[in-house]
Amino acid sequence: MKRYEALAHEIAESIAAGQLRVGERVPSVREASRSRGVSPSTVFEAYYLLEARGLLEARPRAGYFVSAAVGRPMEPESARHAVSDHPVAISELVFQVLGHARNRTLVPMGSAFPSPALFPLPKLALATGKALRRLDPWRTVEDLSPGSAALRRQIGLRYLGMGCGVDTEELVITNGAMEALNLCLESVTQPGDLVAVESPTFYAALQALERRGLRAVEIATHPRTGIDVAALAAVLAQHPVKVCWLMPNFQNPLGSLMPDGAKQALVALLAQHQLPLIEDDVYGELYFGAHKPRPAKAWDRQGLVMHCSSFSKTLAPGYRVGWVAAGRFAREVAQRKLMSSLAAPLPSQEGLSEYLEHGGYDRHLRQLRATLARHLHVVQRAIAEHFPAGTRATQPEGGYFVWLALPPQVDALALHRLALSQDISLAPGQLFSADRRFRHHVRINFGHPDHPGFEQALKTVGTIASALKR
Amino acid sequence: MKRYEALAHEIAESIAAGQLRVGERVPSVREASRSRGVSPSTVFEAYYLLEARGLLEARPRAGYFVSAAVGRPMEPESARHAVSDHPVAISELVFQVLGHARNRTLVPMGSAFPSPALFPLPKLALATGKALRRLDPWRTVEDLSPGSAALRRQIGLRYLGMGCGVDTEELVITNGAMEALNLCLESVTQPGDLVAVESPTFYAALQALERRGLRAVEIATHPRTGIDVAALAAVLAQHPVKVCWLMPNFQNPLGSLMPDGAKQALVALLAQHQLPLIEDDVYGELYFGAHKPRPAKAWDRQGLVMHCSSFSKTLAPGYRVGWVAAGRFAREVAQRKLMSSLAAPLPSQEGLSEYLEHGGYDRHLRQLRATLARHLHVVQRAIAEHFPAGTRATQPEGGYFVWLALPPQVDALALHRLALSQDISLAPGQLFSADRRFRHHVRINFGHPDHPGFEQALKTVGTIASALKR
Repeated sequence: MKRYEALAHEIAESIAAGQLRVGERVPSVREASRSRGVSPSTVFEAYYLLEARGLLEARPRAGYFVSAAVGRPMEPESARHAVSDHPVAISELVFQVLGHARNRTLVPMGSAFPSPALFPLPKLALATGKALRRLDPWRTVEDLSPGSAALRRQIGLRYLGMGCGVDTEELVITNGAMEALNLCLESVTQPGDLVAVESPTFYAALQALERRGLRAVEIATHPRTGIDVAALAAVLAQHPVKVCWLMPNFQNPLGSLMPDGAKQALVALLAQHQLPLIEDDVYGELYFGAHKPRPAKAWDRQGLVMHCSSFSKTLAPGYRVGWVAAGRFAREVAQRKLMSSLAAPLPSQEGLSEYLEHGGYDRHLRQLRATLARHLHVVQRAIAEHFPAGTRATQPEGGYFVWLALPPQVDALALHRLALSQDISLAPGQLFSADRRFRHHVRINFGHPDHPGFEQALKTVGTIASALKR
Repeated sequence: MKRYEALAHEIAESIAAGQLRVGERVPSVREASRSRGVSPSTVFEAYYLLEARGLLEARPRAGYFVSAAVGRPMEPESARHAVSDHPVAISELVFQVLGHARNRTLVPMGSAFPSPALFPLPKLALATGKALRRLDPWRTVEDLSPGSAALRRQIGLRYLGMGCGVDTEELVITNGAMEALNLCLESVTQPGDLVAVESPTFYAALQALERRGLRAVEIATHPRTGIDVAALAAVLAQHPVKVCWLMPNFQNPLGSLMPDGAKQALVALLAQHQLPLIEDDVYGELYFGAHKPRPAKAWDRQGLVMHCSSFSKTLAPGYRVGWVAAGRFAREVAQRKLMSSLAAPLPSQEGLSEYLEHGGYDRHLRQLRATLARHLHVVQRAIAEHFPAGTRATQPEGGYFVWLALPPQVDALALHRLALSQDISLAPGQLFSADRRFRHHVRINFGHPDHPGFEQALKTVGTIASALKR
């Protein structure tokens, strides 16, 4: 962590702890520089960062103040758990609701993807062209599953960087994280088995369960800290769960982040039950705090955690390159990859290897994180201003989703339909559980800072929600 | 068909019918030019083509003669059918036997892939780089499943060219044909169902059945004309088959080609039983005759045929772009694609679209076909010369596999192990049926004309086989 980041982090903590209150003035750049023994430019950079994250605001000729936006909407309540005794059946609703959401004429509030303009696609194009021109033709035969050796080495280095040693032998390159997650699921379940997921959970996880004829037990969560490990332990004691599929970092849709202690407790629980975990960590790089959060995998000593991620949300949408560090299940997963789609595409893998080695991925990520954090602030302010009283919103520390609990009278499917008539897409809460219970919730994608109509669209959705409340 | 191709075809037919015999002299270029009213260069091109295919040989100052190589080894006998009442379990053997076959230090006689040197990879690299540099970023969101609209249009044009109208709406782009085949299988079966395949059949088809917990009924084939439609009809009358998975064009491993009449009868039988067909047609472009063989799909009026193919064997290995024209199952297949791996890679799709539009795919294919046909001739001669008496070999009219029936004393797994000790890979017959019954058969890949040690390796394998026969 750079010096200015450390300082920003410290101030953010003081604000979170209430030591610095909304509207209060923070020390001037000169004062802080003197009192902390750092250069004025370090202080300035820290304040600038906190301003970008919506925690401070600069008032001309008066200095920096704790932003009013810190008084964001209240968080939603914790969600309870639910066990299903029949296979999941949610797909038809998902396809119905999201079928047209990819149309670029819509305001993409319901999209699962951030704006494609956030990614260094021209640089990736150059890297891919360059790598392919010097490709040894025999690599097209040798680099089948588990994937390009060069790319696996680059991915292995990133694991090292986050303090999580991963053997490149356990890495399998896949067609995006989606394939990795599905292959893991296939490797450890039989149709009819019970799988523990979060409540709410990403609809694509539910679809994967449905595709394999599995049942879901949806575990209670807290909107800021994610899955309730004690609740999971209670479920495991009563139900024959075969595998957990969880998102400890910036869960979709909550944006919640499990604290390290909870991750550690989770991994201990897995070890106790010898239960595998499919860890979906596609948003881990998109943290707004000072540190990249570690995956649960970092505490796993038994090879039970299959850690899945991709470059689709952080660098290269459309390249379809994901991977899994599959622990003791690596051979099984690699074989299923060979049997289901043989290998991941070489052009994408080569382009990414080349970019990761020379392209400045970390610089790109810093910019991306700052951009997303800044836009979260805009979106939170708009929600506070335009949505009906009683609306609660999660306060994510990463990713690009906010989860809203609207007043109970507002049916999210009705809201979705009315928003669509105004050319705005929304992801209604009903998609995020097998029993469709989040009826007055919606997921908002704030990963489109470049969209000119985004704030206006939030106002429109807020107005519709207010009307539905009556 | 060009004029010289028509002439070559006519002469080939005369040879096949026995009107021209081995060793017989064909008319001189000047005579043939006069008698047929074509230019001498047309005759010369025709003779050159026939020489390349091993049907004629030029003798200095004497003219062209019907090649001795026309007297190739006899064909193997037809294979009978077998129904299994338990799920397929072949994968472990396949992984054991072929696990190391991708190593470039081996003579790749057991490989499933042709030599990567046969493909225009540098041209594809340029096309991919160019297409990616001008990529509209929003395409990364909009061109998810069913795939790039531009590529689907190009593929649609190729269907038109072979007299098989396909609606681009029924096309789904996949990660190679392997994923297409698996998605089709998943769309029309439940675990435990019975699937009709050829006997012998490609081991990856058996692995796909195993992955889904399916049972196989293996239908009798003829080594030149493929599946016996009457035998299939008899099986359908007795067994509750849910879907057929067949390779009418240049079957793997036989290299057999179903005549048009048999394809028509097959499609009529499907219609009668309202039975879907998964048509694996990855070798259709690699024909040595005058015309591209049409797929069974060309006769299908009911949307029952899911026609799967790819560019992996004909143009772009490693790019992992395949597709299916899925008829009435198109929506189901597209949804399963979305649920299992979201979308095919954009860099590969863009590069292929660009190449197909401007790169000269048909010119490349003409060269590739001539090269493979020429090498088949070399391989057939070497087999006749070096393999033990009683060896029979298929006479494929396309693709790059020859299927050998060795004398019954020769165990193909033993042959495989001994060949491997001489750095030669082989695909033993046991991999090509659920009950491992092709014990004295091997599949030889002749798609490596550039390999310097290939003929010597054939001699080595022949010598080992002769030793095992004793």
